Amino acid sequence: MAVINENYLLIKSNYIFAEIDQRVEKYQNDNPDADIIRMGIGDVTRPLPQAVIEKFTEAVKEMGEAETFQGYGPYRGYDFLIDEIIKNDFNPLGIELSNEEIFVSDGAKCDTGNIQEIFDVTSTVAVTDPVYPVYVESNVMAGRIGPMGDDGRYDKLVYLPCTEENGFVPEIPKIPVDLIYLCYPNNPTGTVLTKEQLAKWVEYARENNSIILFDAAYEAYIQEDDIPRSIYEIEGAREVAIEFRSFSKNAGFTGTRCAYTVVPQELMGYDSEGNPHSINNLWYRRQTSKFNGVSYPIQVAASAVYSPKGQEEIRESVDYYMKNASIIRKSLKDFGLSIYGGVNSPYIWIKTPEGMDSWQFFDFLLNEAHIVGTPGVGFGPSGEGYLRLTAFNTLENTKKAMDRISKLSL
Amino acid sequence: MAVINENYLLIKSNYIFAEIDQRVEKYQNDNPDADIIRMGIGDVTRPLPQAVIEKFTEAVKEMGEAETFQGYGPYRGYDFLIDEIIKNDFNPLGIELSNEEIFVSDGAKCDTGNIQEIFDVTSTVAVTDPVYPVYVESNVMAGRIGPMGDDGRYDKLVYLPCTEENGFVPEIPKIPVDLIYLCYPNNPTGTVLTKEQLAKWVEYARENNSIILFDAAYEAYIQEDDIPRSIYEIEGAREVAIEFRSFSKNAGFTGTRCAYTVVPQELMGYDSEGNPHSINNLWYRRQTSKFNGVSYPIQVAASAVYSPKGQEEIRESVDYYMKNASIIRKSLKDFGLSIYGGVNSPYIWIKTPEGMDSWQFFDFLLNEAHIVGTPGVGFGPSGEGYLRLTAFNTLENTKKAMDRISKLSL
Repeated sequence: MAVINENYLLIKSNYIFAEIDQRVEKYQNDNPDADIIRMGIGDVTRPLPQAVIEKFTEAVKEMGEAETFQGYGPYRGYDFLIDEIIKNDFNPLGIELSNEEIFVSDGAKCDTGNIQEIFDVTSTVAVTDPVYPVYVESNVMAGRIGPMGDDGRYDKLVYLPCTEENGFVPEIPKIPVDLIYLCYPNNPTGTVLTKEQLAKWVEYARENNSIILFDAAYEAYIQEDDIPRSIYEIEGAREVAIEFRSFSKNAGFTGTRCAYTVVPQELMGYDSEGNPHSINNLWYRRQTSKFNGVSYPIQVAASAVYSPKGQEEIRESVDYYMKNASIIRKSLKDFGLSIYGGVNSPYIWIKTPEGMDSWQFFDFLLNEAHIVGTPGVGFGPSGEGYLRLTAFNTLENTKKAMDRISKLSL
Repeated sequence: MAVINENYLLIKSNYIFAEIDQRVEKYQNDNPDADIIRMGIGDVTRPLPQAVIEKFTEAVKEMGEAETFQGYGPYRGYDFLIDEIIKNDFNPLGIELSNEEIFVSDGAKCDTGNIQEIFDVTSTVAVTDPVYPVYVESNVMAGRIGPMGDDGRYDKLVYLPCTEENGFVPEIPKIPVDLIYLCYPNNPTGTVLTKEQLAKWVEYARENNSIILFDAAYEAYIQEDDIPRSIYEIEGAREVAIEFRSFSKNAGFTGTRCAYTVVPQELMGYDSEGNPHSINNLWYRRQTSKFNGVSYPIQVAASAVYSPKGQEEIRESVDYYMKNASIIRKSLKDFGLSIYGGVNSPYIWIKTPEGMDSWQFFDFLLNEAHIVGTPGVGFGPSGEGYLRLTAFNTLENTKKAMDRISKLSL
């Protein structure tokens, strides 16, 4: 008899974005004339940079000609892309990486979801709370942290609350944990850690032989000095951290799909007898058995992000979204809401007003202003009482949405 | 302390194709003038169809314009592709499917590797032997079947030998197994099952509440009548089978990446109390948490495979490769070798001559004829004494390779 992985039954809700989709679809069906502005899902709206389109188009043409056609590519990705990644994303920060330390993939979601596979099922897992649901759900599915109690908290998960009270800076756990997911600039709160704050986590991981799974998908949005763009800016991080990067949010690849993961050669995990094993080897093993690389034309397209023209275009896009963020911040502040993030990140984290809970405020914004946000509680128990808005919209829609909010009364 | 998933240490060898790459690279370095012909990896050589290139190019253009730009797509894939899949790949066989039963992905390797996640870790697994290594390795990694004994067999894996002796038709197990991987037309042996033979497996699965994981990646190569193109041609299969399809081998998408998986709504797995659960729901749950869809331009490109021009072009490609297969079959027969497959499949399965084992014959062909095959033993214990050649090469190289073999002496 085919028995299912019952850990799947421990996941209480639908994937949060699917749930939002359903509510919005129902509202739109009931109110066909409502001009709904989506500021929920962190999906970009600006087209791919022209530098990318040009190279992408050329690479598609190559696939149509026998002399230049490409079949299966290298397991880790093409060197023409990896070379650019290292040269542009890391060397300017003073970080050296070898090509074997980069794994090109079709998305940071896939990588952050799959990475837990290479660790023991009894590993203790810590996440900042609120948190991107993929880290939690992938570990629930693996049987590492379920079931969820009546308080909406998973039994074996170590929550690191990030709230108004602690300025959204997670406290170092008092107990040893094995795997720590950190996402900075943070999704969903839009807040950041300074180098000094992140260094404490590297120190903790080194003391406890823990591994930090550092999601830097929003790195391009950092505006302020002293905010680390890569965890490898922190001394000693190569021995304790995996870093996830993506072309989704800087270059608009959410629908094109390309990302990469950095696994330094020094990074070790341990078997039950305490012998060290290369995490890079394990991840390579995982990828060679269960993945077949990213489309050749897409890797070419991603490499064009690093051309001078590509770099200029992605800067323009980031500036565009950050201008939206600034408009949202100002409007919501003027309206009297307490808000966080939106300075080094495209996300604005709003404290819900008038004692509303997250889904009440979600429904309020949907019904009264036809704006779709993301309920904070969908990101974890400490997200209750908050709601996330994204700056990933057109300037026009952003202004329109803020105008609608300014006319609401609470 | 970050403890690794020790099941990874149970995998004895490198992924077979990586091992071949290493041997070939070494040989080429030692013999820089050798004109090596690769007939090992099942990678296509012909460019993408022009019908595909045209639509692919248009879709890239759309990604560069704000009005037509696409961000995150639907979790299961775009309906414009799924509609074509159902209309062209299934309806003509008398099979009805709903759009919710199709999951578009970036590769059948990923899907066949990941599907085991949704089943219990104690499930018994049966595979034909020899077999595509991904099925086995993904289950070893999950802790379902290791460790491997000294005889080169995994303790808890149920092997279904397919050899000269049984005409490459796997025998129905005498014991109940939970999950059965069947790949037809078969990789690596190139052999097929008739409808009657496959129907016995469906009957077995229905009797035992087993699930068949049916890999039909080579469906396009079927030439003979009475060979099922889909397992759903067999009555009752919707309740017991998942089918994997790919654009890699029919339309040359190995380096472009697109595939799909069919999970019928009737298909149930069971929890430990015997309650049924929809496998479609579980797989949807898995995909929404750990996957983010296939690139929009690639889904457009895949949909063009179904245009009249696309269909004509892929038929030409299949014919081209099958002509190679026929040349290989004739040459090897004339040379005096016992061969199988190559009639409804691009793979030719050769019995090694003169008592050589698989790797000896691999090295013999590499050293003496500069031809790269795939050692049968890399696909499982019953593959020992065989070697696989593929027809995925140019006609010119295929002829050259066969000419070299005809001049060898054993």
